[in-house]
Amino acid sequence: MPTINALAADSQVIEHGDPLADGRAFRRCLGQYPTGVSIVTARHGEKTVGMAVNSFAAVSLDPALVLWSIRCESGSAAAFLEASHFAISVLSSRQVEVSQLFGSGHEDRFKLTSWTAGIGGAPLIDGAIAHLECRLAKVYEGGDHWILIGQVERYTRSTGEPLVFAQGQYAVSQNHPQLAAAARAAGSPEPTRENPLFTSLLTSTSQHMSRLFQEHRQALGVTPATSRVLNFLSQGAASIDSLEHDTLLGRGAIEDALSELIKQGFVDVNAGEYSLTAAGLEKRLALTQRAVEFTAEQLDGISDADLAAATRVMGKLLSN
Amino acid sequence: MPTINALAADSQVIEHGDPLADGRAFRRCLGQYPTGVSIVTARHGEKTVGMAVNSFAAVSLDPALVLWSIRCESGSAAAFLEASHFAISVLSSRQVEVSQLFGSGHEDRFKLTSWTAGIGGAPLIDGAIAHLECRLAKVYEGGDHWILIGQVERYTRSTGEPLVFAQGQYAVSQNHPQLAAAARAAGSPEPTRENPLFTSLLTSTSQHMSRLFQEHRQALGVTPATSRVLNFLSQGAASIDSLEHDTLLGRGAIEDALSELIKQGFVDVNAGEYSLTAAGLEKRLALTQRAVEFTAEQLDGISDADLAAATRVMGKLLSN
Repeated sequence: MPTINALAADSQVIEHGDPLADGRAFRRCLGQYPTGVSIVTARHGEKTVGMAVNSFAAVSLDPALVLWSIRCESGSAAAFLEASHFAISVLSSRQVEVSQLFGSGHEDRFKLTSWTAGIGGAPLIDGAIAHLECRLAKVYEGGDHWILIGQVERYTRSTGEPLVFAQGQYAVSQNHPQLAAAARAAGSPEPTRENPLFTSLLTSTSQHMSRLFQEHRQALGVTPATSRVLNFLSQGAASIDSLEHDTLLGRGAIEDALSELIKQGFVDVNAGEYSLTAAGLEKRLALTQRAVEFTAEQLDGISDADLAAATRVMGKLLSN
Repeated sequence: MPTINALAADSQVIEHGDPLADGRAFRRCLGQYPTGVSIVTARHGEKTVGMAVNSFAAVSLDPALVLWSIRCESGSAAAFLEASHFAISVLSSRQVEVSQLFGSGHEDRFKLTSWTAGIGGAPLIDGAIAHLECRLAKVYEGGDHWILIGQVERYTRSTGEPLVFAQGQYAVSQNHPQLAAAARAAGSPEPTRENPLFTSLLTSTSQHMSRLFQEHRQALGVTPATSRVLNFLSQGAASIDSLEHDTLLGRGAIEDALSELIKQGFVDVNAGEYSLTAAGLEKRLALTQRAVEFTAEQLDGISDADLAAATRVMGKLLSN
């Protein structure tokens, strides 16, 4: 049996070092690990607290324990540490706005979201794909965070797909490409009207094109975050809040992208509004042009008639 | 501003209760939260230990702390608790086999994988998208697990996309559908050879079809796991190990699927080999037939010529 990850040569170091020397770079490194998004809530006296976290982790099956961490300096820390219970709601892929709302600390977040009171009065967010109602069992020190251990008293699993947060952006999970490849190898190679593999072919093609496009962008020295911010700013100046809402990037990724774009002279900031400079506008046009060329290269050898037919097919499928 | 998750009505409770009453059901609920896959390793004396875990979580930026959990009964627990350091390798989407190898506890796992020794001799898996070299800072009690807190002494971030583990299966992350929808709304509605939105149309169509197909399967009372196990067993009897390798499902999901299929009379087990019964073969044929009908329904109204053209286009794109 050969060494199984000969593909290792494909990966290249982007940055490395001492985590205390560059906190932002360290945070980007931690962001390589994909997570879900949970809303953690608690009720203490008259105070209801809630925030979006991605530090949730399962710990133990018997006793049933889970954990998450809160910044010691968070304004909600005291209430979470004093409440008898907390609740975890694991968000579905359709709940980006809920994550953004609870990430922002908006004071009306419990009015703008529908929820049901769970054990100890802790709100359970409606539409979540899992709820864990926990008694606060222990609090451990974790540097600039407290680690809260909850004993799960009641769980609920519901239908739906998870919201994913990976590499600074909201995402969804999709079947692994190896699965579609195996299914096609086992089945008929030609998808037809009677062949359920048409969907798998669509998925494979989409994943393949996404990967090629990402490699292409990387070769141009642009990250998904900087290119996304450039795109949105090309429609007009924007605040960090509205960028966060529209780009589906996390706060940290947006701040990193903006600081890089400002350093490169592509973005200016004025009274909290970010806008493209002339050089930024030019850069964005150049990137769009390269994307057009890339698409044309990929489609080279495909006739106009076939391309129009493929577009019709996808338009029809999307409208179902 | 209206309540933002009116979509809540879409989600339905599958199972709920006391986590100690049904440990498997509780584990399925925990599995709703998507995670990455990390290989944790350590070197203690002459012993090198390593395992695949999805309990990794970031804790603190300053000091730089991370955590993960290990079963108290694990044969590697003593070495991890005594070693001065451990290393975390966050796997890329191309490293499913590495995850399976370290999940299996295969005794040659360090011979079958390429790695480099990090601080304290802990192996860093080549090809990972992040490495965190940690000094073991603290060990906390966590029920049937130990929670290990590591102080990160050195981090490395590399290119690549993360491997995702969600709802019992290996997966990849993909752009959130809302992003493509926003891009299409802002750009030209008709993707052409000169329009980079062709890729985004492919992604949207693929995501839309996958979701419809999943809803369809759910309506038939089949989970992704049971249908995948039925499919693979229709090619012949198989052990749990080979099912795990081929289905890209986690051990827990396969065990759950097999136990359900046995209870339904669709699967028999004989000397560790699982095979379809006559009823199982029939069920699988019926499901395939329904998938064929579903595909035909989706493609209804699309001409044979257009379908053939779309298939040619995707075949060409995949071959690039």
